[in-house]
Amino acid sequence: MIKEKIRQIAQNAKTASRKIAGINTKIKNDALLKMAKHLVASSDQLIEANLKDMEYAKQKGLSSAMQDRLLINKERIEKMADSLREVALLTDPVSEIVKMWRRPNGLQVGKIRTPIGVIGIIYESRPNVTVDAASLCLKSGNAVILRGGSEAINTNIALTGILIKAAVESGFPEKALQLIDVTDRTAVQELLKMDEYIDLIIPRGGHALIRTVVENSSIPVIKHDKGLCHVFIDSEADLKTGEEIALNAKTQRPSVCNAMETLLVHKDIAEKFMPSMIRRFKEAGVDVRGCPETKKIVSDIKDASDEDWDTEYLDLILSIKVVDSLNAAIDHIAHHGSMLSEAIVTTDYDRSWKFLREVDAASVYVNASTRFTDGNEFGLGAEMGISTQKLHCRGPMGLEELTSTKYIIFGNGQIRN
Amino acid sequence: MIKEKIRQIAQNAKTASRKIAGINTKIKNDALLKMAKHLVASSDQLIEANLKDMEYAKQKGLSSAMQDRLLINKERIEKMADSLREVALLTDPVSEIVKMWRRPNGLQVGKIRTPIGVIGIIYESRPNVTVDAASLCLKSGNAVILRGGSEAINTNIALTGILIKAAVESGFPEKALQLIDVTDRTAVQELLKMDEYIDLIIPRGGHALIRTVVENSSIPVIKHDKGLCHVFIDSEADLKTGEEIALNAKTQRPSVCNAMETLLVHKDIAEKFMPSMIRRFKEAGVDVRGCPETKKIVSDIKDASDEDWDTEYLDLILSIKVVDSLNAAIDHIAHHGSMLSEAIVTTDYDRSWKFLREVDAASVYVNASTRFTDGNEFGLGAEMGISTQKLHCRGPMGLEELTSTKYIIFGNGQIRN
Repeated sequence: MIKEKIRQIAQNAKTASRKIAGINTKIKNDALLKMAKHLVASSDQLIEANLKDMEYAKQKGLSSAMQDRLLINKERIEKMADSLREVALLTDPVSEIVKMWRRPNGLQVGKIRTPIGVIGIIYESRPNVTVDAASLCLKSGNAVILRGGSEAINTNIALTGILIKAAVESGFPEKALQLIDVTDRTAVQELLKMDEYIDLIIPRGGHALIRTVVENSSIPVIKHDKGLCHVFIDSEADLKTGEEIALNAKTQRPSVCNAMETLLVHKDIAEKFMPSMIRRFKEAGVDVRGCPETKKIVSDIKDASDEDWDTEYLDLILSIKVVDSLNAAIDHIAHHGSMLSEAIVTTDYDRSWKFLREVDAASVYVNASTRFTDGNEFGLGAEMGISTQKLHCRGPMGLEELTSTKYIIFGNGQIRN
Repeated sequence: MIKEKIRQIAQNAKTASRKIAGINTKIKNDALLKMAKHLVASSDQLIEANLKDMEYAKQKGLSSAMQDRLLINKERIEKMADSLREVALLTDPVSEIVKMWRRPNGLQVGKIRTPIGVIGIIYESRPNVTVDAASLCLKSGNAVILRGGSEAINTNIALTGILIKAAVESGFPEKALQLIDVTDRTAVQELLKMDEYIDLIIPRGGHALIRTVVENSSIPVIKHDKGLCHVFIDSEADLKTGEEIALNAKTQRPSVCNAMETLLVHKDIAEKFMPSMIRRFKEAGVDVRGCPETKKIVSDIKDASDEDWDTEYLDLILSIKVVDSLNAAIDHIAHHGSMLSEAIVTTDYDRSWKFLREVDAASVYVNASTRFTDGNEFGLGAEMGISTQKLHCRGPMGLEELTSTKYIIFGNGQIRN
C-alpha cells in the first residue's frame, strides 16, 4: 500500500518533470512570487498547523533546541517569503549555454544546462527547508518530492498545500511539487528504490539518516554529511584577526556543520597567541582541550586525547593543537578533517595560496570564518544542502548545482568518415 | 589474498593522488610526450606481448570482430602515441577558476577546478582505452587504477609498464597509474568496495558489466550504458541531407552505441523520402523493418514489431516509423530512446530549436549524424567514456569531466553575525 503510494508519487513526478523542463523563466518567477504572497497571507493557517506539531513535540519531550528549529511564527514566515523572492531574482540556469566551440569539420558543439529531472529530498525538522527545496527545484526546472521529518508533518502539509496552489495557478503541473504525507519509515525505503523515476536523492540530516540513504539507495545520492572543520593560525597571521575568526568559527553557532572543532596554531606564534585566545574561549563558555604544547603555554585546560582530533563536537567544546609548520597543518587537516570548511589566517601571500591549493575541502578560506559555508552567504539565494562529496558538485548547492548539461550540435549535413 | 592486493593498490593510489594533485602542467605534458615516445620505441615489445593475447583469443575462438579490437600493430601504436600528444596539447583543467564573485561583505568567493582523486576504470578488449584513460587521468591530476579485460592482459601489462616508466621519469609518483594484473573476477568485486580510497568508478563495456558495477559498487559510478539512437527526418527536411545522415548513422559503424537503431520519418514527406532511402539501406545490406505506414509506401520489407522500437541492434538492422508530427517524434524518442545521441534533419529554425530543447539526451543534433558523439570528434582529445547519466556529467567525458570543484574564499577578517 505504501509502496504503491510512493510509486505513484514518483511516477507522477517523472511525468510532470517533462513539462516543467520547458516552463519559461517568467512563469517560474511568477510562481515563486505568488508562493511568497500566499505564504504570508496564510500565516494564521500555517501557525495553527505548526501549533499541532509543537504540542506533539512537547509531549514527546523534544529538546528545546529541536523545538526551536521546528517553530514557525510571523517573522519566520516572512523570512521564507523573502527567500522565495530572492530565488525569483536569481538567473534561471536552464538553457544557459556553458560553452560552445567549432570543430574543423564545421560542427558547432555546445554544452547547455538542463534540469536534472526528478529530485527527492529527505530532511529533518526545519520547515524552511521545505520552502527552499521547493523554490530551488522549481526554478531549476525540476520536479521535487519532499520527505520532511515526522515531527513537522502538519506544518509541511500546510506549507506544501499553499506552495502547490500558487505553483499551479502560475502554470506548473500539479505534481511538480509533492510531499510524502505518510510518516511511516518504510516510505523512505520505497522511495530509495524508485530509480526508474527519480534522478537524484539528497539526504539532509544526521549521520544515521545519511548512512541509511547511501546504503539503500539505487538512485544517485548527493550527501550532506558531517563537518569537522579547522582554523589554522599561521606564523604570519595577524593575531587579532585570528582571534576574532577563531572565536566566531567556534561560538557563533556551535551546533552546525561549518563550525570549527579544532584550532591549529603555528608554533612560532603560539606563545603570543594562546593566552588571550583561550581566555576569550573560556569567557564564551567553551570547554577547551589542548595538546601538550598548548598546555605548556596555558596549563589550566583539559588534555586533548587522540580521539578529540576526530570528534565533531557540534557543541561548545574545542581542541587546540600546536603544529610545527604549514605543511603539518595541511597534513593534520587531510588526516582528521571532513573536508567541508577549512580556514587559514595569514598575511603571507605564498602561504595563503599553498593552503588554498593543497587543502582538499569543499570550501577553503583565507582570513575569514569557516561559518560562511552556506548557500545564502555565498549568494546562491537559498541552499539545497552542502555536498560533502566530489562527484557532481561540492559545497553549498544552489540552482546551478541542480542542473545537468547536454551537448547540442549544429551541423549542415556532416557525416562521419 | 586478492582482497589484500586490491586494498594495497587502492591505498597506494590514494596516497599518490595527493602528490599528483599538485603536479604542474609542464611536468604532466612532459610525461605524456615521453609516454608517446616510449610507446613507439617499444613497438616490437608491445606487438610481441599482444601476440600472446591474440593467440589465446584464437584458441578461445573469439569472434573476428573481437580479435580485431584486441589487435595492436605499428599503425595502432602510432595512433595511441598521437592521442597522448593531443592530450598534452589540451589545456590543463586543474586550478582553472570557473567563476568568482564578490559578496556585499567583501568576501571574494570563487569556484576552482580540482582533481577528483582516485579513478578506477573497468573496461573490455581495446588496449587503446588503457592509454586514453591513463593520459586523461594523469593530465587531470588524478591517480588511476586500470582493470582491462582478461583477454588483453599481456598487452595491458606491457603497455602500462611503459607508461608508468615514462611517468615516473617525468616526476609522477610510481603509483599514479596502476594496472590490476590479476584476471580473477573477484578482483572487480573487491575493487568496488574500496570507497575509502577510490572516488569514482567508470565501467565501459557490455550491459552485464555495467549492471554488475552499478549493483555492487559502494563507490560513485559514472555509467557508460547502451545507445538506442534515432534520426528524425522532419517535414521540412532537405531530403538529400536526410538520406546521407541516416545512411551514415546506420551503416558507417553499426556495432557502436551512437549508431542509429530507429529512423523516424514525418508523414508529410514519407512518400517522397522512403523509396530512395530504403533502396540505399538495402544496397548497404541493412535488414529494414517498417511500421504499417512505411510498408504502405515500400512493401517489400519486414514488419517492425513493438519490440523493435526498444531494441539496440548494434548490427545492420533498422526499424523505420512514420510519425504524424514533430511532437510525436519527440514523444517516441522519450519513450523508446536511451537518451544518448538523437538527431533531427530539418531546414526549419523553430523546429530545430524545439527538438534541441525538448529532447532530453546526452547529445542532440541538428543536421548531422548521431555518430559524432565521441570525445575525439567533440575535440576533447581522447575520451574516458560517454556518460549516459545526468549526475556529474553527461555525454563524452574529457579532461574537464574528470575534475571536481571546490570553493575558495578570500577574506580580510570577515566573521559571521
